[in-house]
Amino acid sequence: MRSQRLETFADGIFAIAATLLILSVDSQVGNRPGGLGDRLLHIWPSYLGYAVSFLTIGIIWVNHHTVMDQIARTDRTYLFLSVGFLMCVAFIPFPTRLVAEHVRGEGAEAAALTYGFTLTLTAVMFNAIWFYAVRGRRLLREDCDPRVISGITRSYLPGPWIYLVSTLVAFASPTASVLLYMALALFYVAESSVFARR
Amino acid sequence: MRSQRLETFADGIFAIAATLLILSVDSQVGNRPGGLGDRLLHIWPSYLGYAVSFLTIGIIWVNHHTVMDQIARTDRTYLFLSVGFLMCVAFIPFPTRLVAEHVRGEGAEAAALTYGFTLTLTAVMFNAIWFYAVRGRRLLREDCDPRVISGITRSYLPGPWIYLVSTLVAFASPTASVLLYMALALFYVAESSVFARR
Amino acid sequence: MRSQRLETFADGIFAIAATLLILSVDSQVGNRPGGLGDRLLHIWPSYLGYAVSFLTIGIIWVNHHTVMDQIARTDRTYLFLSVGFLMCVAFIPFPTRLVAEHVRGEGAEAAALTYGFTLTLTAVMFNAIWFYAVRGRRLLREDCDPRVISGITRSYLPGPWIYLVSTLVAFASPTASVLLYMALALFYVAESSVFARR
Amino acid sequence: MRSQRLETFADGIFAIAATLLILSVDSQVGNRPGGLGDRLLHIWPSYLGYAVSFLTIGIIWVNHHTVMDQIARTDRTYLFLSVGFLMCVAFIPFPTRLVAEHVRGEGAEAAALTYGFTLTLTAVMFNAIWFYAVRGRRLLREDCDPRVISGITRSYLPGPWIYLVSTLVAFASPTASVLLYMALALFYVAESSVFARR
Repeated sequence: MRSQRLETFADGIFAIAATLLILSVDSQVGNRPGGLGDRLLHIWPSYLGYAVSFLTIGIIWVNHHTVMDQIARTDRTYLFLSVGFLMCVAFIPFPTRLVAEHVRGEGAEAAALTYGFTLTLTAVMFNAIWFYAVRGRRLLREDCDPRVISGITRSYLPGPWIYLVSTLVAFASPTASVLLYMALALFYVAESSVFARR
Repeated sequence: MRSQRLETFADGIFAIAATLLILSVDSQVGNRPGGLGDRLLHIWPSYLGYAVSFLTIGIIWVNHHTVMDQIARTDRTYLFLSVGFLMCVAFIPFPTRLVAEHVRGEGAEAAALTYGFTLTLTAVMFNAIWFYAVRGRRLLREDCDPRVISGITRSYLPGPWIYLVSTLVAFASPTASVLLYMALALFYVAESSVFARR
Repeated sequence: MRSQRLETFADGIFAIAATLLILSVDSQVGNRPGGLGDRLLHIWPSYLGYAVSFLTIGIIWVNHHTVMDQIARTDRTYLFLSVGFLMCVAFIPFPTRLVAEHVRGEGAEAAALTYGFTLTLTAVMFNAIWFYAVRGRRLLREDCDPRVISGITRSYLPGPWIYLVSTLVAFASPTASVLLYMALALFYVAESSVFARR
Repeated sequence: MRSQRLETFADGIFAIAATLLILSVDSQVGNRPGGLGDRLLHIWPSYLGYAVSFLTIGIIWVNHHTVMDQIARTDRTYLFLSVGFLMCVAFIPFPTRLVAEHVRGEGAEAAALTYGFTLTLTAVMFNAIWFYAVRGRRLLREDCDPRVISGITRSYLPGPWIYLVSTLVAFASPTASVLLYMALALFYVAESSVFARR
């Protein structure tokens, strides 16, 4: 398959998963007593969850592009690994809503764990498609720069571990875990855009 | 119509149908009593249904690409057959939710039958677009390899029968039927990616 | 704007509007007492509504492509007319659900009228974008065939009137009106694909 | 990243955000007593909200294209600014529903403020991506016309202020504020398409 059609499919799933996040915000506002203004203020974790997950999906989208840029062709295994990876991305709206709804209540731990395991699995699958493509330069472009490849490898490899640790933090403090997911997204954006320019 | 615009439309529907699957998981978690952790464990059929249907749509997407690769042009009949085929694909989220919600209850048979008939009809429509294109080499590329064409034909032809049989199994045991749908998706991925490399 | 980006946006809206139709089927099944099998049979108008609206959107998509094929460029007026046209297309899931839910009850007339006026307005907007492009050959390709242009004009012009009449039939019999919408979609597919080959 | 892939992602989000607007109309009709005809008439603010927000997203889409046309390349900062901008666009269905549901009740002020702040923030982010690209001609095409660039700058710069003022009007009269949002969309379409032709 031309890698272009995989990109169209993947971009579609990134765009839909990100846009569906708004439905969770929508569903929160209806369930509460009180004036609309109070209710809109009360559901602030929904806005934060929306922003963090949208940004996280945006980061994954940017990185997926970096991977696709190094690839000259695809094969069936690569396609099905990509389907598995996209399955994780499209799952993100679900734990986002759980966290937004439960972060201030009894379900905070379960919600934070679900969010964290989803992102950890996404990072694992992301590494899987990258290492499958790189191994023996299986799907890489002829002219790609070995230093760029090993640079990408170095930057993706810690991802699953960082997310796993942030997830396990939820057993001690769900709030701390959620703050970590937020910090990771912001740090990544800062690191790859602002700091990178120096 | 250039076949490229059909691909964009089809890829859009594949991507949306797959991503909408998460809404069913979402709707399951809210309806039950108990702590969030218990509820999240209780709805495990939703996760499985999500994974199997996402994978199934991914398989159909990969195969649709294989078909489009052999085709040089489209005509109106082909376009409307494709619309009918995509109508089946976009229907998949509905029986997925039925199965996830009812597989452990009284409605298991009705849910498994609906799921199975949807996939059977999808397989029938998939064959319809393929045989319409192939007949008298109507829409095929000039340079396509007759052995590739007959190889594709051989691999698609049993699809509707296999799904029909798996569907009918639901009359005896809905669970066995659902396990068959799952096994078919996994077998297909294994067969076409892992085994194919030998 | 390159007409290609309009096509991507339009194809996206066609694909999403068609795929969202399944959410209406989804919402019908939950509201009724009785076994799942009975409920699934009881909501047959939902399946029919899904199929007719999906097909109708598919027909509009095919025709929109025919228009775009004759066009060499776009301008702002054309883009905003297209936005208005797509606003009608994206509205279709709403009356589809109304008809599916109410065709057998007291609300049948209101539902059929809403469905009909939506399709009438869609046909009006479709003619608007076509006549805007054609007038003085404003946006047409240099090399387009005048006979093709007048053929397209002849085939689109009756659309709004046919749908308006079908809509007004709802005042006498909502069921007859709904059957007419169905017949129009099927006739169109038959006429443009099967009969066209002679 | 090639700017083309950003366009595909952005067009996907524009198309989905616009199409999801219909779900809000859908959710309004179910909540009221009375015959279907009466209920459909009663929810007229939903239709208006649908039309205004669809048109507003359409306008943003057209303008985003104008920006992308002047740009030769992207960088990480630009991509993440675009993600932030699209986060605002995908948020629009939420306040649209709030306004449609509450404009005639006690929550009118809160709803109109939420709508207005969302559009104000969208306009701010739009300016952010434009000025980031323009500054020192950072991402502009080599051959772009300085007069076109400064013309675009002049037309975008007042956007956030106009929306901020319309938003603040909601403290005095939510209805006036909503009418202003409507007038702004209509004026923009008229100005950029009809008047522009003279």
